[in-house]
Amino acid sequence: MKTIDLNCDLGEGFGAWEMGNDAAMIELASSVNVACGFHAGDPDIMRRTVELAKARGVSVGAHPGYRDLHGFGRHPIAGLKASEIENLVAYQIGALQAIATAAGHKVTHVKAHGALSNVACEDDMTAKAIAAGIKAVDPSLIFVVLANSKLVKAGEAANLPMVHEVFADRAYEDDGNLVSRKKPGAVLHDAKAIADRVVRMVQDGAVVSVTGKVIKMRTDTVCIHGDTHGAVEIARTLRQALKDAGIEVAPFKRGA
Amino acid sequence: MKTIDLNCDLGEGFGAWEMGNDAAMIELASSVNVACGFHAGDPDIMRRTVELAKARGVSVGAHPGYRDLHGFGRHPIAGLKASEIENLVAYQIGALQAIATAAGHKVTHVKAHGALSNVACEDDMTAKAIAAGIKAVDPSLIFVVLANSKLVKAGEAANLPMVHEVFADRAYEDDGNLVSRKKPGAVLHDAKAIADRVVRMVQDGAVVSVTGKVIKMRTDTVCIHGDTHGAVEIARTLRQALKDAGIEVAPFKRGA
Amino acid sequence: MKTIDLNCDLGEGFGAWEMGNDAAMIELASSVNVACGFHAGDPDIMRRTVELAKARGVSVGAHPGYRDLHGFGRHPIAGLKASEIENLVAYQIGALQAIATAAGHKVTHVKAHGALSNVACEDDMTAKAIAAGIKAVDPSLIFVVLANSKLVKAGEAANLPMVHEVFADRAYEDDGNLVSRKKPGAVLHDAKAIADRVVRMVQDGAVVSVTGKVIKMRTDTVCIHGDTHGAVEIARTLRQALKDAGIEVAPFKRGA
Amino acid sequence: MKTIDLNCDLGEGFGAWEMGNDAAMIELASSVNVACGFHAGDPDIMRRTVELAKARGVSVGAHPGYRDLHGFGRHPIAGLKASEIENLVAYQIGALQAIATAAGHKVTHVKAHGALSNVACEDDMTAKAIAAGIKAVDPSLIFVVLANSKLVKAGEAANLPMVHEVFADRAYEDDGNLVSRKKPGAVLHDAKAIADRVVRMVQDGAVVSVTGKVIKMRTDTVCIHGDTHGAVEIARTLRQALKDAGIEVAPFKRGA
Repeated sequence: MKTIDLNCDLGEGFGAWEMGNDAAMIELASSVNVACGFHAGDPDIMRRTVELAKARGVSVGAHPGYRDLHGFGRHPIAGLKASEIENLVAYQIGALQAIATAAGHKVTHVKAHGALSNVACEDDMTAKAIAAGIKAVDPSLIFVVLANSKLVKAGEAANLPMVHEVFADRAYEDDGNLVSRKKPGAVLHDAKAIADRVVRMVQDGAVVSVTGKVIKMRTDTVCIHGDTHGAVEIARTLRQALKDAGIEVAPFKRGA
Repeated sequence: MKTIDLNCDLGEGFGAWEMGNDAAMIELASSVNVACGFHAGDPDIMRRTVELAKARGVSVGAHPGYRDLHGFGRHPIAGLKASEIENLVAYQIGALQAIATAAGHKVTHVKAHGALSNVACEDDMTAKAIAAGIKAVDPSLIFVVLANSKLVKAGEAANLPMVHEVFADRAYEDDGNLVSRKKPGAVLHDAKAIADRVVRMVQDGAVVSVTGKVIKMRTDTVCIHGDTHGAVEIARTLRQALKDAGIEVAPFKRGA
Repeated sequence: MKTIDLNCDLGEGFGAWEMGNDAAMIELASSVNVACGFHAGDPDIMRRTVELAKARGVSVGAHPGYRDLHGFGRHPIAGLKASEIENLVAYQIGALQAIATAAGHKVTHVKAHGALSNVACEDDMTAKAIAAGIKAVDPSLIFVVLANSKLVKAGEAANLPMVHEVFADRAYEDDGNLVSRKKPGAVLHDAKAIADRVVRMVQDGAVVSVTGKVIKMRTDTVCIHGDTHGAVEIARTLRQALKDAGIEVAPFKRGA
Repeated sequence: MKTIDLNCDLGEGFGAWEMGNDAAMIELASSVNVACGFHAGDPDIMRRTVELAKARGVSVGAHPGYRDLHGFGRHPIAGLKASEIENLVAYQIGALQAIATAAGHKVTHVKAHGALSNVACEDDMTAKAIAAGIKAVDPSLIFVVLANSKLVKAGEAANLPMVHEVFADRAYEDDGNLVSRKKPGAVLHDAKAIADRVVRMVQDGAVVSVTGKVIKMRTDTVCIHGDTHGAVEIARTLRQALKDAGIEVAPFKRGA
């Protein structure tokens, strides 16, 4: 039986502020990425999120971002040295590990957040620094990498176990890169169409590009979102379509 | 041969800002307490501080404080729940553990900072929450407790290994409590007098109170400061006096 | 025709995070208190909130709080000097004044937020420091004070124009103080009962205490909340009840 | 008699952390740029700095930066909208205006800090947004602009009074731009050479480029630094050289 992981960013509130619909998304995801306090999240939210994940049998990963609460980690911050990125990644992983230990659970993976991830997908230095931060803390942590990005090479060079991620709701260029959000059609909104393409990704290991070209793409995990009501519905439709296609949703295993 | 630990708070800068004289103090201390980012410190400063400690063979501990960068963790923050204190302690310990692992060193102890410590010394809930945060992350971490404070009972109840700390430069009441900083004579400034009383503490297990009473006091570690030029001089005098008295300065061992 | 002001805290998001239902509440309030960035709010949210207020003909006031984003300004912070409180109040007022000027509107009043207000209601030093901060920036700013609190005396001593505020949904002791939230019955939840008592406050200048005693109470403005769905409903019911009673809802005038 | 303004960034501590040597620099500068809390500075430091400036008869200006305490405002933050930059500039100006009013002084100018300034010198959108933020608060505020940068055009377009700034210790290209810090010789270190070129700038309205070309350059104010011991010495030497050349150091007047 084929399996696929559905991963979701959770615990993205801060103090009194909430973000997204964690209660709904935890029902749909098989692994969650927990904000670690730099772009969102705090020790209490981290604890609740890990406890929720443990109760549901869902894997937890660290979701480190730039130090940017106000910008929710979405602003690229220039001028950071590799060592600074390595250290901020290590710090955030460690913080979540301690909270997970306190909650009787375990951190299994790391996925960079927002602008840190976006920058790293195109910048070798940043990608390598993230990988270095993970490896320095625990080389058995699974590195979640966007398929076809610089993160893949950085993870390989660091010899980290990896899982390849695709976005369910994003269009792809012929070369396997995401269509820029600045272009029309970059983001898919039809739940049925999104579900169909994910099923095909899992079954065929391929995605159809905007020009109709079939691109081979390793797909270990699919990123689902819960920020909006529509997003939750899309995730539900996807989950059902996977079930109908006989594909099991389960946390990813340690990458090859 | 008698031994005593000298502990010092280090790594208390933030970003471009520096605090104290870490380079001088690391030469004088046998264990250091590293700020973990809530009242001071950041991942880069933590890394440098741990690397410095490792190079000098000095033990490192986490020095968690309230979330209060602006107030340097010196303002008591009311209204926090026990779970919030437990989580912020756990988070900060974990962050330092990861940084220490990245630097090839190890976190051996935990000492609460500033107002968090001051409040805990007199408030059972806070003291127990700190102990709970430590225990939840790693019950073998040594809890540095102010002698005669509520921290001692909290550490005992949590069955944590403990070392008892005294302040070299503070006067004591007959009941073993520190003389309030609001009273004259609360803080000693004469380097020779400070050194003499510490030597006696180690040799006799006792301290002389402001009224002249001899109080039995377990002394595993002495807190030294490096905020000012005078403070560094006091620490140097103390270190020499211990040497002259045949007392070895060495990191504390796992408490009984 | 009798008039009453309904004031509401708005603009309490931060960056990507939202709080409350500003769009609904601005329709119901005649003056709004805008978070100024220390416990909530940021320059963009402040700008949008002031523009919204201007478009609706609603007065805006500064709503300064402790520097405590994580705690939403709800934690009492001990150990601040009077000058520090004065300065943080002045800073926040000035920030909002500039944003209001940029938006073509004007700051007319100041109301302390959360723990800063709660502490000031019982602590002379804090109350006076808030009044000093307002006066130092602009002595014509209206000081919104909780009826019967230390804020009243502080405002009088500083010779600031004042308006007296009551809470629509809080029970009162015989001495005119709010019933502590720790006691049962401290907060009223029935929309009709809340509306009736506010109408009476405006008509009679009195409120009935928990023991049934009629207490004289000057009522210039009533605080309404929008944090929850129920809160919005209560505010709507109140607004309708005032209309039915022939009481006009209008921004308060410069106090006597 | 020719006059020149010497401007210096002051008040760049935060909470318990200090930066630079404000006491020494206030003696040498005729105008100071006060950090407003986003990259450095806090209400108390702002108050002390303004009071110091007032006591010395020195002009104060706002020194707004990116929201980046940890990076001291030195990291370019990408992705901010023009309105966000406008609002953060307005907010910071207003905050300082209120503090200045409280201290009996007045904000006369605005100079962008660090990365915000560096980005604006080359990016029209950012330069215009800064000018818009100033104008929205008070169109009579003097905009301190780096000579030959995009800031000049933005200030002209906004019809703001301007003064042109040069750096005493930086080398210039033939086109009037600063030599990049990445190139050797970008920063001058010899106090005498620095002083001589500033005297010539004031006397001749020109600077000699790295290739020896004489470039006409309007010079209303010279930026001096106080971060290091050497920097203070350079400023002292410059101040003496100006005196010897019969040039008066005085705050700039409202630009033409």
